[in-house]
Amino acid sequence: MKQIPGGVTAPKGFRAWGVHCGVKSKKADKKDLALILSDQECAAAAVYTMNRVKAAPLYVTMEHLEDGTAWGVAANSGNANACCPMSHEYAEEMARLAARATGRAPADFVVASTGVIGQTLNIAAIRAGMPAAAGLTAGPEGSDAAARAIMTTDTVKKELALACSIGGRTVTLGAIAKGSGMIHPNMGTMLCFVTTDCAITREMLSEALREVVPRTFNRVTVDGDTSTNDMCAVLANGMAGNPLIEWKDDGYTVFLKALRQLCQELARAIAGDGEGASRLITCAVREARSEESAERLAKAVVGSPLVKAAMFGADANWGRVLCAMGYSKAPFRPEYVDISFSSAVGAVAVCRGGMGLDFDEEAARSILSQDEVVIDVHLHEGEHEATCWGCDLTYEYVKINGDYRT
Amino acid sequence: MKQIPGGVTAPKGFRAWGVHCGVKSKKADKKDLALILSDQECAAAAVYTMNRVKAAPLYVTMEHLEDGTAWGVAANSGNANACCPMSHEYAEEMARLAARATGRAPADFVVASTGVIGQTLNIAAIRAGMPAAAGLTAGPEGSDAAARAIMTTDTVKKELALACSIGGRTVTLGAIAKGSGMIHPNMGTMLCFVTTDCAITREMLSEALREVVPRTFNRVTVDGDTSTNDMCAVLANGMAGNPLIEWKDDGYTVFLKALRQLCQELARAIAGDGEGASRLITCAVREARSEESAERLAKAVVGSPLVKAAMFGADANWGRVLCAMGYSKAPFRPEYVDISFSSAVGAVAVCRGGMGLDFDEEAARSILSQDEVVIDVHLHEGEHEATCWGCDLTYEYVKINGDYRT
Repeated sequence: MKQIPGGVTAPKGFRAWGVHCGVKSKKADKKDLALILSDQECAAAAVYTMNRVKAAPLYVTMEHLEDGTAWGVAANSGNANACCPMSHEYAEEMARLAARATGRAPADFVVASTGVIGQTLNIAAIRAGMPAAAGLTAGPEGSDAAARAIMTTDTVKKELALACSIGGRTVTLGAIAKGSGMIHPNMGTMLCFVTTDCAITREMLSEALREVVPRTFNRVTVDGDTSTNDMCAVLANGMAGNPLIEWKDDGYTVFLKALRQLCQELARAIAGDGEGASRLITCAVREARSEESAERLAKAVVGSPLVKAAMFGADANWGRVLCAMGYSKAPFRPEYVDISFSSAVGAVAVCRGGMGLDFDEEAARSILSQDEVVIDVHLHEGEHEATCWGCDLTYEYVKINGDYRT
Repeated sequence: MKQIPGGVTAPKGFRAWGVHCGVKSKKADKKDLALILSDQECAAAAVYTMNRVKAAPLYVTMEHLEDGTAWGVAANSGNANACCPMSHEYAEEMARLAARATGRAPADFVVASTGVIGQTLNIAAIRAGMPAAAGLTAGPEGSDAAARAIMTTDTVKKELALACSIGGRTVTLGAIAKGSGMIHPNMGTMLCFVTTDCAITREMLSEALREVVPRTFNRVTVDGDTSTNDMCAVLANGMAGNPLIEWKDDGYTVFLKALRQLCQELARAIAGDGEGASRLITCAVREARSEESAERLAKAVVGSPLVKAAMFGADANWGRVLCAMGYSKAPFRPEYVDISFSSAVGAVAVCRGGMGLDFDEEAARSILSQDEVVIDVHLHEGEHEATCWGCDLTYEYVKINGDYRT
């Protein structure tokens, strides 16, 4: 398996584009409408936010994917198209506009939106912009444009592609994603569109997505909020020519591994680019009695505002780590817990058997001042583990969210 | 029922004091050791943090209250006395020191600590300071000193007293509390010590406390973190001379109402003085199908970092309110939801039937710029309601917690 350039246009037979159409009215230079299209029909699967309030495009996409197939994706940023009287009609119209511009049918499209909730979508802008968005290209600039057109408060575009070998053929997976605020477990957690030329049945594709998302995107938390619009969709057009993956054979295992790596890298990128984040925080909980316990504990740690603020201050305040574990509702024995912090420049043990260790505060501060910091927790209770990702809590987060809408 | 001056020394037969002994070593002017003592044995009850990691003083207090009686409280701020090898011994020693200084027995004392976790308590400072802390007085300055001696990052001291009439006698309740960071539901949520001269059995006292805390302190959230040290204890010495409250008679009803009002006012004070807070946020959810649902929804709203940041920015971003309700896991019908914001200067309806309303942004901004803002949510589903309290998320919160320990 190897990382290759490009994103959603890296797999065979996919084109993409992104334009500014005017949904982001005050930012005329920012792209806000993305289109992805396959040259052939795709097996398709998606997972959606667990929020009880779901935006209209999600319901429309669910309908369109009922048959397990799709040809493309139409997505806008700048407006969530949620909780407005016309939201559902506009989500349907987006699919119709994409279909008209590409010569396909409305039900061939995954539709997605991201942005402010409760403000009417500027559908006129989408109408006017869709023909330009259909200027699709198979080159890397197509994926780049689409990746930029789904960004909101993201500071860097997120795209990635991987190649692996299945049945003697090169199979490629590509993806674009957006994250930033309102990132939290229980699916969705953001927008992510994965394309692949793998030949795989819709059932196996859906199975793979449901195996991967809980261990990648659902282990990211930026601020504990779960958006109304989160979605991760995968489209597989089969053009790699590998033997069709119909059950959990070796090919499936390779595909699953590649999909997991792709999603994990994007999950880390989303966490590290959380709103206002100055560093990526990884919490690995090991030797737990179950994976579920380990995940709950790790998620509580990376989700704790007090831990996040301490990480911002590069303060080795491990008591907050143990405290967050304590209220996670996962069972564990505090008196067995070891905690250490590590990063590119070293590691420092701060707690053993639930009790504080003497450590060099200056060394700890230097370790915690890096772009990526790992909180290692050993429970000494079992064989299971889980890793969750988050970011620090900064002034910038408050600034961005104190005045996002206006 | 009426509010009267003073705090824990307002009820008959209670004395208190607070001193600087040196636990807060870098802040020589800040008090850090409090003592409260009754002239007679008290019926006593307490509730504790639900965090799996509990600080040593909590275990010691549980032991001491096993017989349902106590004479006083010894508490320090500046150090949590948690997760250190000597924590338990030191918590026991604090009770012994308080007993020696007052001529009582160690088991007569509730012991509590608040501050940094995992650093060894400066017990020598407590040893040296306890005799001075025992300079108890029944005047309001005694309660004032004790209230100040339990503060950490609190910006204002919290104390309150209420008088009510039970069986023709004036019964007084007083309390001091500290809150600020790590404030979150599931008991505890902070330190609060309530004194009363009410004659009430230990069983009825415990019952009243358990009825009141879930509807007051447990409905406060500052940052979702639940501390290892939270405790609310109540001591009743019977010196008001009212007929002993032995069951749920009229006297109990009056006492319960007074205790609830006392705790509710302190809960609001704690929320409004959350770390870095610039305003108190109240969310009232009405017409819910159950009180539990209403509480979950209201708590999710005041706990959402995105809602909190919007409130800091005085931004009427009601979509975040609906979104937070959506991930609360409480059942409700989004399409029935009405939302409005109100404060001392007016009210503005922003959402009806789950859909956004047109509203005057400038008027909304002025309403949201007040010290107390109420988010009113109507579900149109039933007859139940709940109110939760929180605060906005500010630069100051990040600053305080990015460098609290050092």
